[in-house]
Amino acid sequence: MTDYTAPLRDMRFILHDVFQGPALWARLPALAERVDGETADAILEEAAKVTANLIAPLSRNGDEQGVHFDAGHVTTPDGFREAWRTYREGGWVGLGGNPEYGGMGMPKMLGVLFEEMLYAADCSFSLYSALSAGSCLAIDAHASEALKATYLPALYEGRWAGTMCLTEPHAGTDLGLIRTRAEPQADGSFHISGSKIFITGGEQDLTENIVHLVLAKLPDAPAGAKGISLFLVPKFRVAADGSLGPRNAAHCGSIEHKMGIKASATCVMNFDGATGYLVGDANKGLAAMFTMMNYERLSIGIQGIGCAEASYQSAARYANERLQSRAAMGPQAQEKAADPIIHHGDVRRMLLTMRTLTEGGRAFAAYVGQQLDLARYAEDAGERQHAQRLVALLTPVAKAFFTDNGLESCVLGQQVFGGHGYIREWGQEQRVRDVRIAQIYEGTNGIQALDLLGRKVLADGGQALAGFAAEVRAFCVSTPLHRDALQASLVRLVACSEWLSARAREDANLVSSVAVEYLHLFGLTAYAYMWARMAAVALARHDEDPAFYGAKLATAEFYFQRVLPRSLALDASIRAGSASLYRMTPEQF
Amino acid sequence: MTDYTAPLRDMRFILHDVFQGPALWARLPALAERVDGETADAILEEAAKVTANLIAPLSRNGDEQGVHFDAGHVTTPDGFREAWRTYREGGWVGLGGNPEYGGMGMPKMLGVLFEEMLYAADCSFSLYSALSAGSCLAIDAHASEALKATYLPALYEGRWAGTMCLTEPHAGTDLGLIRTRAEPQADGSFHISGSKIFITGGEQDLTENIVHLVLAKLPDAPAGAKGISLFLVPKFRVAADGSLGPRNAAHCGSIEHKMGIKASATCVMNFDGATGYLVGDANKGLAAMFTMMNYERLSIGIQGIGCAEASYQSAARYANERLQSRAAMGPQAQEKAADPIIHHGDVRRMLLTMRTLTEGGRAFAAYVGQQLDLARYAEDAGERQHAQRLVALLTPVAKAFFTDNGLESCVLGQQVFGGHGYIREWGQEQRVRDVRIAQIYEGTNGIQALDLLGRKVLADGGQALAGFAAEVRAFCVSTPLHRDALQASLVRLVACSEWLSARAREDANLVSSVAVEYLHLFGLTAYAYMWARMAAVALARHDEDPAFYGAKLATAEFYFQRVLPRSLALDASIRAGSASLYRMTPEQF
Repeated sequence: MTDYTAPLRDMRFILHDVFQGPALWARLPALAERVDGETADAILEEAAKVTANLIAPLSRNGDEQGVHFDAGHVTTPDGFREAWRTYREGGWVGLGGNPEYGGMGMPKMLGVLFEEMLYAADCSFSLYSALSAGSCLAIDAHASEALKATYLPALYEGRWAGTMCLTEPHAGTDLGLIRTRAEPQADGSFHISGSKIFITGGEQDLTENIVHLVLAKLPDAPAGAKGISLFLVPKFRVAADGSLGPRNAAHCGSIEHKMGIKASATCVMNFDGATGYLVGDANKGLAAMFTMMNYERLSIGIQGIGCAEASYQSAARYANERLQSRAAMGPQAQEKAADPIIHHGDVRRMLLTMRTLTEGGRAFAAYVGQQLDLARYAEDAGERQHAQRLVALLTPVAKAFFTDNGLESCVLGQQVFGGHGYIREWGQEQRVRDVRIAQIYEGTNGIQALDLLGRKVLADGGQALAGFAAEVRAFCVSTPLHRDALQASLVRLVACSEWLSARAREDANLVSSVAVEYLHLFGLTAYAYMWARMAAVALARHDEDPAFYGAKLATAEFYFQRVLPRSLALDASIRAGSASLYRMTPEQF
Repeated sequence: MTDYTAPLRDMRFILHDVFQGPALWARLPALAERVDGETADAILEEAAKVTANLIAPLSRNGDEQGVHFDAGHVTTPDGFREAWRTYREGGWVGLGGNPEYGGMGMPKMLGVLFEEMLYAADCSFSLYSALSAGSCLAIDAHASEALKATYLPALYEGRWAGTMCLTEPHAGTDLGLIRTRAEPQADGSFHISGSKIFITGGEQDLTENIVHLVLAKLPDAPAGAKGISLFLVPKFRVAADGSLGPRNAAHCGSIEHKMGIKASATCVMNFDGATGYLVGDANKGLAAMFTMMNYERLSIGIQGIGCAEASYQSAARYANERLQSRAAMGPQAQEKAADPIIHHGDVRRMLLTMRTLTEGGRAFAAYVGQQLDLARYAEDAGERQHAQRLVALLTPVAKAFFTDNGLESCVLGQQVFGGHGYIREWGQEQRVRDVRIAQIYEGTNGIQALDLLGRKVLADGGQALAGFAAEVRAFCVSTPLHRDALQASLVRLVACSEWLSARAREDANLVSSVAVEYLHLFGLTAYAYMWARMAAVALARHDEDPAFYGAKLATAEFYFQRVLPRSLALDASIRAGSASLYRMTPEQF
């Protein structure tokens, strides 16, 4: 019932037709030597096999069985260990990793498509990999040569796995409040003491070692967020030859019982004078951690797309099979007692809404991936900087908009099944539970929205937004379809941003009162840009494959006519401002 | 963590201030002799105790433990049997029941408030009661005097419980497809054979007997929905003196494993020539069942409100306690390391959105309850008919809009908790899982929307809508607050309805393509009417209790400024019509 097949045709459409990835890679020397279109297609095909045959079959039982905790040890569900072994032997953890240390160095535009498959197959399994890959990024960017040489190869191989230890019981969003301490030792290492909660993969039985990236405070650290440092704390200490040494004082105290992602171990981690190593500069730990967090934010955004795609596949199949009532336009399956529900308008509304949000998200993820590749590999410094600015602007949109849409889509996919959607065996309800966390972790979507509006749009005087808007405007000049609607959407976003900019200084509460609506307004405009680009390509190539490209054109039309109008409500709500939010005292709530 | 206290102050506001229930009852002779304001308050206070002290404490364990099935027997979670005994001894099942047979005959306006408390305390427990009360309505309205005398008293007492057996594996929405057969017997009874699924409380260990209302087809029945009859099928046959006789051939074959409402037994029921009795006329069973279904639809709508209220209470408490970051307008709790998150704009946005939807829903439920009381008890036939028409129009709105808002609210309430919202022990995630079913059962919300737009608005040429609109317009003349926004909203709804009416005949797919958006547009307008009424009262009484009435005024303002603008998007989406939904073939999905 929960079969998932990677949508390879759609992914090639994004990679080749819409964004012409191979042409981009060819002009970036570092990538040109590693990958071309053929290699990319081969990787996607192999990834499709791994996710469909190896990982997706674990998902239902993983949810039922969950992870188990006993005296410091975590046991993953049946099949996870064997699957991880095969997965890591395929080199998937290091897909985007630094080749100097054994990574494959593949472009992010490819990586985002792979991650979508992974999350679609099973969110819990994916997290062990995604956290590890993200920790490698931070280590690669900020750790000493010695730490990189010691840790990165085994992490890329998947023999070890990485974690991200930020949250403490009293300090989630507000990391300046953390209490975990780091005491310098004579040998240059540190003793780390404190408790962290909500640590994904903090303990597990998949890998030989676990490498924790831990935020902690040095004895002389300034108060608040400016006094946070980043430490690498291995579960087993590592000898100079790479062999495992003594057990470190980093132990899992318990695991959480959650709504979903039940096969992912969410751990309380206790550090009792555990040996750790400084990563990056003292008191600059938050910035270093953000290298990982920005990666995870995009990755977690993609969790929303993956879950939605899997939910859509099941729902579309069910809608073609389930017979119930006659179509309004007259019988469609005369020989049967009723018509497939795919003929009912409301079922089509649900499925098309899912398509617009999921495919729009896939395109946008690839677009952000492309910018990440440019930011890293472009030869021209200006081009790198422009891309980096776009990435900073668009990452919070991706994280929050993908995952809000992910929940909406999975709820719709469940609704298509009627009563059967609520029953566990059909799998649709698990998607809803699994995707829900993605709106919460890696910075809640409210925090993403504050980051977008406060830091990325208003703080730089609208420069980053102007860069994005210029690109969309330039595209509008040439596009044959949906130009007016896209332009109107962009004008609305820019005008709303200017309206906010003019008022935010006088009204300290404005940004946090309207940020979530603003992020959605931004997201809808970004998807309009994506759908206009997809439609332009689909129109040009229509005759090569009318069924495929015709579906793209139809879905784009649905997006502009039936989904994009949500902007009208968001714009009006934003312009109502913060006043009505601050009339009540806390006690009146 | 999951404490729930009935919002008695808010409920009295609705009952006395806004709708002046006691004055209405005083002019309806049947109610005047049974209830006045004081009695109603006493009932609500007692209900608050029962729900807070008896039922709410069962909810968490009920979710964890669930119901168990073994060889035809269902065991409810620990504490359910004892709680049911106390509950039934309080006479709560028969609160709205016919006094001729032992019911209390209380007005529905009171009943909806009681049901909200019940669902807020625990959805699973509530369902055993709600199904029973609904089955009584159908029996009271359609069964023979002998059946009523035999079954109603024990059902009202809660010694027995009722169920509703409609769905079969291949027949959910489309009941015309059912295959369950009824064979007439010489003694006037029938032998019922067939399988029903998704039967809430089909088997349980709370009551001595279970009374199934079963849809089945007589041998000579016409095909489709016009050949369906309704039968009463007891688990144990009942002797003339009311004592229990032999076990009937109605057995539970299995139970479903579900996303939520885990303490509610959702049963496969097998009828193997079980003895049953015709209720109402042959082949008129669907109409008779609709007496129960309309009751359940409102009740299930109220499930959405109850869950949302419970989620809100926890979220508001948490937001006042959880310290994280400083308020944008400057420190609010100087002595602490951070401010309570209630000071952050986005947290207020979430809580206020919940308030507008939940309190708007409570008012609307009471309004529909009032119309139900008028439809039943008004002396003037014209007044009864007007009320009946309003009830028919507003019931699908109540069911679907309450429950869609219920999910939105519970998701927001979970989001306020951040990571803790995803952890089971905090209870917020259970609300999300429990409320989700309410959008699906009792006719999916898509079906409610079709009923509203197709049958209740368009089929009668807009008469029922015109009646509602006239009432709102008349109110606008006198209201001191939000008049323009309410009027604009009503104009938009009426214009959109006319637009649809003009096009629906030419476009067979139009109604089903836009019905859900239309229902939301309707619901937002109805809530605008409710909020304008609440604001008018709050303004008039403000000085009596500035904190309470001030909160009502602030919440109303938030509704009009920040929530009602959703209408703009819905209106635009509806007017885009059905074309973009029907460009793809089923295979292209």
